[in-house]
Amino acid sequence: MRMYDLIKKKRDGKELTKEEIKFFVDGYVQGEIPDYQVSALMMAIYFQKMTNEETVNLTREMMHSGDVVDLSKIDGIKVDKHSTGGVGDKTTIALAPLVAACNAPVAKMSGRGLGHTGGTLDKLEAIPGFSISLEDEKFINNVNTHKVAVCGQTAAIVPADKKLYALRDVTSTVDNMSLIASSIMSKKLASGADAIVLDVKTGSGAFMKTQDDSFALAKAMVDIGNGMDRETIGVITDMDQPLGCAVGNSLEVIEAIETLKGNGPKDFTELCLTLGSYMLVLSKVAKDFDEARTMLEEAINSKKALEKLKVFIEAQGGNPLVVDNYDLLPKASLEVDVKATKAGFINKIDAEEVGIGALILGAGRETKESEIDLSAGLKLLKKVGEEVKEGDVIARLYLNDESKKDNAYERVLNAYTISDVKPEQRKLIYGIVDKNGINKFN
Amino acid sequence: MRMYDLIKKKRDGKELTKEEIKFFVDGYVQGEIPDYQVSALMMAIYFQKMTNEETVNLTREMMHSGDVVDLSKIDGIKVDKHSTGGVGDKTTIALAPLVAACNAPVAKMSGRGLGHTGGTLDKLEAIPGFSISLEDEKFINNVNTHKVAVCGQTAAIVPADKKLYALRDVTSTVDNMSLIASSIMSKKLASGADAIVLDVKTGSGAFMKTQDDSFALAKAMVDIGNGMDRETIGVITDMDQPLGCAVGNSLEVIEAIETLKGNGPKDFTELCLTLGSYMLVLSKVAKDFDEARTMLEEAINSKKALEKLKVFIEAQGGNPLVVDNYDLLPKASLEVDVKATKAGFINKIDAEEVGIGALILGAGRETKESEIDLSAGLKLLKKVGEEVKEGDVIARLYLNDESKKDNAYERVLNAYTISDVKPEQRKLIYGIVDKNGINKFN
Repeated sequence: MRMYDLIKKKRDGKELTKEEIKFFVDGYVQGEIPDYQVSALMMAIYFQKMTNEETVNLTREMMHSGDVVDLSKIDGIKVDKHSTGGVGDKTTIALAPLVAACNAPVAKMSGRGLGHTGGTLDKLEAIPGFSISLEDEKFINNVNTHKVAVCGQTAAIVPADKKLYALRDVTSTVDNMSLIASSIMSKKLASGADAIVLDVKTGSGAFMKTQDDSFALAKAMVDIGNGMDRETIGVITDMDQPLGCAVGNSLEVIEAIETLKGNGPKDFTELCLTLGSYMLVLSKVAKDFDEARTMLEEAINSKKALEKLKVFIEAQGGNPLVVDNYDLLPKASLEVDVKATKAGFINKIDAEEVGIGALILGAGRETKESEIDLSAGLKLLKKVGEEVKEGDVIARLYLNDESKKDNAYERVLNAYTISDVKPEQRKLIYGIVDKNGINKFN
Repeated sequence: MRMYDLIKKKRDGKELTKEEIKFFVDGYVQGEIPDYQVSALMMAIYFQKMTNEETVNLTREMMHSGDVVDLSKIDGIKVDKHSTGGVGDKTTIALAPLVAACNAPVAKMSGRGLGHTGGTLDKLEAIPGFSISLEDEKFINNVNTHKVAVCGQTAAIVPADKKLYALRDVTSTVDNMSLIASSIMSKKLASGADAIVLDVKTGSGAFMKTQDDSFALAKAMVDIGNGMDRETIGVITDMDQPLGCAVGNSLEVIEAIETLKGNGPKDFTELCLTLGSYMLVLSKVAKDFDEARTMLEEAINSKKALEKLKVFIEAQGGNPLVVDNYDLLPKASLEVDVKATKAGFINKIDAEEVGIGALILGAGRETKESEIDLSAGLKLLKKVGEEVKEGDVIARLYLNDESKKDNAYERVLNAYTISDVKPEQRKLIYGIVDKNGINKFN
């Protein structure tokens, strides 16, 4: 088998066999196939696409390019959740203890963030003492004892994706459904979950800007999951404005805690309840969506979820007192109010601009080496649809380095579009994709 | 400027500017842009194509990536000839002295062959003592004195093409008109000619199998040449069966000499007269095609062309006596007759199979390091349209290593298709492309 022939075959629009895909993934990971041939293949795939079967085969070979986590010692059906990412997405911090409080096991491996804001791991590390490095045994014990544990992905998981993604990132070959889907799903599958709930964002602040693309990506990922016998559901959710109000690590932890206290922003609370319901259904803890939702609401109302959060934090070395005392979390020394420069309705909040504002304040990483300021970030005090007067405070910046203030202020202010007409309300949940196909909600 | 953005721009079907093309060619030659980004760009170009302007700009930047030969010290309009290559193509050896005998200066740089048979340089080296390494001054003096010199391209010519072609060759991105045209034309233009005649082959034995593709490639090259103010004519000629009868270095030299004696194969003689006529017209030695053709025919009939060949050989250190005594050329120790296994008309001779047969006998190079057996090769004694009886000798193999006999015999025999029906005669010249556009002959 020659890599040249594989490139030509795909270039000419033909389907690669399982053996050919294995040859290329193995050869690339082992350094036998050079970058320049793989980038040519990636570009050919960009133009010619991959079939379902090719995509499943690629995912399987990538998944098996490194360690595959064995969660069989954990009782019950382990359901993982993955989000395609967006600004203000602190879902795991609230959702993991919420679902665990309903007795579904949550054994989650998360990544660090690169870009606008930190990832889940960075956010959790805002809690003093919290450790995301757990030995395998401790990880499994924690889930069996407390139903919940979150740790970092080991470097040994899916080395093929690390190499491939880095190459695609510099050769303009990221934007292909099959490649995106296989990248995400190979990691999820290697992390050992039995079933997966995918939160596929859509809108201006998401990787997929249009609903069509978002449903297509969800479909590709669900087909892979089900094609490999892991029940998978994709939920298409809004990311046209940032999720919730808080953006920044410490601030997002507080918002997640508030949500479990029943005081969370409406959109974020609704998202947690929706994703959580599908998780409970897949784990067979609830018989259907409605029963699951009732269980989750009950877990919030009874404070069971909040108690589970404390147990979760303590079990990973963190200080559980943060739940009741936010002063124990990193706190910025400066607060700056962003004020509306005209009256009207908030028509749009550009999530990417907000994210860049938070990044400037120190909440995210510009390069892999950047250090995050866990206390920095911002709060959106007015969201799309709300009416404001000129001079009203629409957002608040939290920072330590005053030199960054003006730049971030301008970004956040410009992220807001205020106009005379009240905008139509966007949906939060656009539909789901599961083994039965695509179901768009009216 | 970032290479990433150039890849994305081309991927998305937009036109690259002159500056962007310069950035990428310079950066690649200087090692600042890695192979993996360039191969992704090449694949994007494969799918999105390049405009005329992009192609001219790419050619210009490639041409200027290394030395550009200055032929201004040679009197007259220097016309170069280039063939896209095929089996049995010994044109330069006959054509250069033929045109020079009519007083048009021929200052030609040629390449070595890789594949079926040797290149022009290999063929000339079959002549004892002949040197293709000429100092610049000697090269120019020879042309001024004798009107003809042929030497090897220096390594310093178009380094961008060497690097790019090697990369395209292993990433399945060779098959693009603009890239093929710019690769050929950048070298021709850097070689310093004032005007260029392109022999674009078409048919099963050519790089371009269809007439449409051949005319398109000719058009792309002619547009480049004229776009850079070098008058360029493309002649589309047949390569559905090998050109002439001889394939192999020593054997092809003999056939070229015979042609200047007036005894050449009909197709090869006609090709030399056609290409030579356009060369004389472009060099303004003849006022039109018909006058040029008469001059060339006269040069053959009067033996002026043959005398010029002797002068040409002697001026480059070769033994001019070979012209009258073929025993002075390398001679194979074994001759094997290939016989028809059935009666009928020769319907087809697969040029590629014949080329591989010659390669097996030792006439070509399998890798850059292979050594050529200058005496090895074959002669096609029957060509398309001729009638044969079972057992008639249709070809003759010339070799030194008997172990290669059976393999080559089978190849050459199988290259022939004999059937009951007399085939329609194919044209030799299908048309021309010049600054006025495409002109297909009836």
